[in-house]
This record gives sequence, structure tokens and C-alpha cells, in this order.
Amino acid sequence: MSLPRLTLAAYRDGILAVDRVTLARAITLIESDLPADQPLAQQLLADLLPHTGRSLRLGITGVPGAGKSTLIEALSAQIEGSIAVLSVDPSSPASGGSILGDKTRMESLALNPRAFVRPSPARGHLGGVTRRTRETILLCEAAGFQTIIVETVGVGQSETAVHGMTDCFLLLILPGAGDEVQGMKRGILELTDIIAINKADGDNLQKAADARHAYSSALHLFAATAPPVLTCSALTKAGLPSLWKAIQTTANPARRSAQALAWMNETINESLISSFENQTSVQSLRRTLEAAVRQGDITPLQAARQLLQAKP
Amino acid sequence: MSLPRLTLAAYRDGILAVDRVTLARAITLIESDLPADQPLAQQLLADLLPHTGRSLRLGITGVPGAGKSTLIEALSAQIEGSIAVLSVDPSSPASGGSILGDKTRMESLALNPRAFVRPSPARGHLGGVTRRTRETILLCEAAGFQTIIVETVGVGQSETAVHGMTDCFLLLILPGAGDEVQGMKRGILELTDIIAINKADGDNLQKAADARHAYSSALHLFAATAPPVLTCSALTKAGLPSLWKAIQTTANPARRSAQALAWMNETINESLISSFENQTSVQSLRRTLEAAVRQGDITPLQAARQLLQAKP
Repeated sequence: MSLPRLTLAAYRDGILAVDRVTLARAITLIESDLPADQPLAQQLLADLLPHTGRSLRLGITGVPGAGKSTLIEALSAQIEGSIAVLSVDPSSPASGGSILGDKTRMESLALNPRAFVRPSPARGHLGGVTRRTRETILLCEAAGFQTIIVETVGVGQSETAVHGMTDCFLLLILPGAGDEVQGMKRGILELTDIIAINKADGDNLQKAADARHAYSSALHLFAATAPPVLTCSALTKAGLPSLWKAIQTTANPARRSAQALAWMNETINESLISSFENQTSVQSLRRTLEAAVRQGDITPLQAARQLLQAKP
Repeated sequence: MSLPRLTLAAYRDGILAVDRVTLARAITLIESDLPADQPLAQQLLADLLPHTGRSLRLGITGVPGAGKSTLIEALSAQIEGSIAVLSVDPSSPASGGSILGDKTRMESLALNPRAFVRPSPARGHLGGVTRRTRETILLCEAAGFQTIIVETVGVGQSETAVHGMTDCFLLLILPGAGDEVQGMKRGILELTDIIAINKADGDNLQKAADARHAYSSALHLFAATAPPVLTCSALTKAGLPSLWKAIQTTANPARRSAQALAWMNETINESLISSFENQTSVQSLRRTLEAAVRQGDITPLQAARQLLQAKP
């Protein structure tokens, strides 16, 4: 992070020449909070845009302990070509807590010359983290990566964001009577394209088969086109070829156009809302009005109108 | 609709005196699209606000044919005190198609002196329809109604809106292997507080019991605190006392404060966004930029920035 910035041409040419050091430095530029870095970062993205889009974008979520990192390592043996692994974890603390920041994880993948592993930005609110991840996907595509895996912890709002930037969204769970997904929000189902039951090996084999049946039946109750449910083992490699095949079949790059428009509109709306909210006159009046609404002294509509009129 | 407006005092006093004709005319005022009617409508709501809030607000959703109307009629026999039934159905065509607009439905309830039945506004976008329904709830509360049932068809975005204005959200389904909910979006689960399996009578009894078991098991796979699943029959009245008891137990008026703040914020955000979008300069540039984003010529972020700069 203390390295000086490169020139636009150096970033661009380095990435197009598949130079990983330059790619890593460009991602750092994209992640920078310095306003001065933004014009260069955006110009770089604009220059690289014609070279993006030619990858399979896979999202993977699951509660901590579901085995996401080991699955990604094992799955990578099934995947032809180069692989980039990114993470979205806005909940991680400032140091050492990000999903992939732990250096003991994905060791073999990180050493694999076909792979590029990039941990989550160590801090930031969800909107910032997801913007950076979306743009990092583009940088990795320009650097020729053919499969891009975005990993997230399925306990917050980040799954919706990752679903909105990938062609296929995989939910990884453990065998057992559902206890493992209890930390997940119910809405995760709406986002899921494939469910994989991990650790289907040894003593777990029967439990995994039972879980597959249970999830499969349950999903048919709630969805006309229920996502496929598969079992796999990162340990024995069982089920991994089928899982990769299911991912390729399910992946739907046609949704990228709608995702890009949604991203554009979200950016516009967030900007309009935050520039309104950042006005001092709005901030103090909002506190008063919120208290009045909470106490039932005024209707939400009245409060909204008063606040909108406070806009200078 | 062709009746002249009343005075503020006439609306207010009529509603507080539980005069249904005045209540109906006040709802028509609230539903009016005429800008000139809005100040009076909002003043009326402000005056009545101290008299609102003392009801159980129940939302009911289910696909067409699930038996919502007959269930509401049958359930009303379990409910002590007065009942208002409102509907949210932005999908209904301009004439005759609204859920409750069909006069053959809820005939007995409409004739019941304890009940007040109000069909959905016959047209309008979801935001307008839900604003009117939220405000109609307040008018009905001021008129002393003790249970307010908001009915919606569970196939669009309206369930989220109804969930955001009720203390308890009930999903009504039919016995059978899940085929009946296939028209519903998977995200409905996230909103559901209670699932009731209707038509648990005659030949359906075993099927309903099986469905109850299946839904109950399925929900435990996807939610730490799974909503209760009950069976009932609008025909034989079986299960209705338990259902009403479950509704009363599950209803959580504590969420109203957060609902009101969310309503306030949604109103503000929608107003900021629409006043931006309604600018002519924005509209034409947006079309150009959206096409460029769709074709991958510019990034969504670039497009967003260009459009935000177009703001005069």
C-alpha cells in the first residue's frame, strides 16, 4: 500500500500482459479511499472495459465453518484455465479477520500459478466493499482470468451484493438437520442457484444424502424452479466434477446486462440520498422528526414532507 | 367518487363517531389523485393520529384460489370486536378485477355490522396503492376498528409492502405437494410469520396433515425461528380457533416504530429519486447511458457519474 502509483499506461499494459504484481497494485488503487486516486482508477477501468466480460463469475456463500475455502481449493482442480478468488466480507475487523486474510487458508491455491487470491478490503461499509469487488472482477477479467470466484459469508447483506455481480450463486452447507444454516437469513433461498452439501465423506455420507433429500424436497415446496442440490467432499473430491458441471450449466451470463443497469441505478440513488442526508440542516431536523414519528406524534408522510422542505 | 368533499371537521367527527359512510368517503379522499385533495387528506390524518394504533394489524397473502376471502370470512367469526378488511392489489385492472371488488366475494362479511370491507384502489402503481392502504389503516383505527386485515395476492412486490404495515403476516396455502405455491416468489418465506394450510377438510385431511409436516420440516432447514404451520378449514371451521390464537400470539406491534421510520425514509428516498428522474435533461441522457452500459461501452459507475453531473 505504500508503493507509489504507477502511470495509467503502466497499470493498463501490465494488466493486459497478465502481470500479477501490476494487477495487485491496480486493485489497491481501486480500493484506495483517497479521492485523488479515483480519477486514475476510473480511467483505468474505462480503458480496460473492452477486455472484460470473458469469464465465468461464480459466487459462493456459506456460514463460517461450511468449508468455503477448502471447497474452492478442491474445486479449482476441476477448473480449466486461470482462476481468481476474491472475497466480500464487510464484517471483518480491521486486521486479520477477513475471510481470506488468514494466511493459513488457501495456501495451495495461493501458490498455484493458475490462481490469484485476493482477500477482502480490510475495512469499509458494504457499499464500498462491493463497489471495489465489482471493479476488481473487471480488472481480473482484463488480466485474462477465466473463472472468477467471489466468496462471502452468508450472514448479512453481502450475499445480495455478490448475487448481483455473479452468473451463478452457490450456497454451501454442511450435512445435518439444518442447524448449520440457522445463522443464515431466510431470504438466502431467493438468491441461491445451486446448493452444495459439503463434507459428504466418511461417517457423514448418509447424513449428507439425507440432507440432500431434505433440502431438495423443501426447495420444491417453495420454488417453481428449485435450484439443484448436490453433495460433495473437498476431502475425497467426490462430487466435485458434477458440482463444477452444474455450475457451468447454471451460470447465466445473460443476467449481466440487468446487473450492470442495477449497479448504475443503485449508484445514482445512493448518491442522491447521501448528498441529501449529508446536509447539516437535514441531519438535525431528521433526528427531531424521527423521534416524533417513533412516538406517533406525526405521520411518516408528514415527517418526510417536512424533511424534504428543509432542503436548501 | 362524484360526491363533494366534506369539511375537515365533518370527516374527523364522522370517523370518530364510527360513521361508516364518512369513513368510506374519507378513504376516497385519501385515495384521490387530485393534488387539491392532498392537504385536506394529510390534515385529516394528522388530526386523527392520536386516535390510531389500537388494533391488531394482520396481513394475509396467498396465490389466487388459496381461499383468502373465504378464510377471512370464516376467521371473522373467531374475532371479537369490529373488523376492517382492506386489500392491496396493484395488479388489478382498472375495473372489476380487484381482489375484493368482485361483489360475490365476502358477501356475508360485507353484510356483517361488525365488519367494514374496502376493495383495493382500482388502479395505481404499488407505491401509491400501499401509501393509501397504510393511511386507510389509520383511518379505520380512528373509527375504532379493532382488527384490521390487509389482504394481498402473493405474486408480486406487494407482500413486502403489506409485511411492512402489519403486526403479523400470514401465508395461506393449499394442501398438496407444493404445486400451489409455485407462483410465489421464494422470498415470501422471509416475510412469513405464520403459514396456514387451508381446505383441510374431507378428502384433503390427510394431504393437509402431510403438507403441514412437510412445510414444518422444510422451514426448520431454512430458519432458526421457523414460523408456525397450522391447518384449517374455512368450510368446517376446524383449526380456526387455533389459527386466531396463533395470530394473536405472533402479532408483534413492537415492530410498528421501525415500520413507521422505514415508511418515512422510503417516502423521502422515493421523492429524491423521482424528482431527479423527472428532469428532462436526465431522462434523455439516461436512455443513452443505459444503452452504453448494456453494450459494455462504459462502466455503470461512469454512467452514474455522468448522469449525476447532468443535474442542473
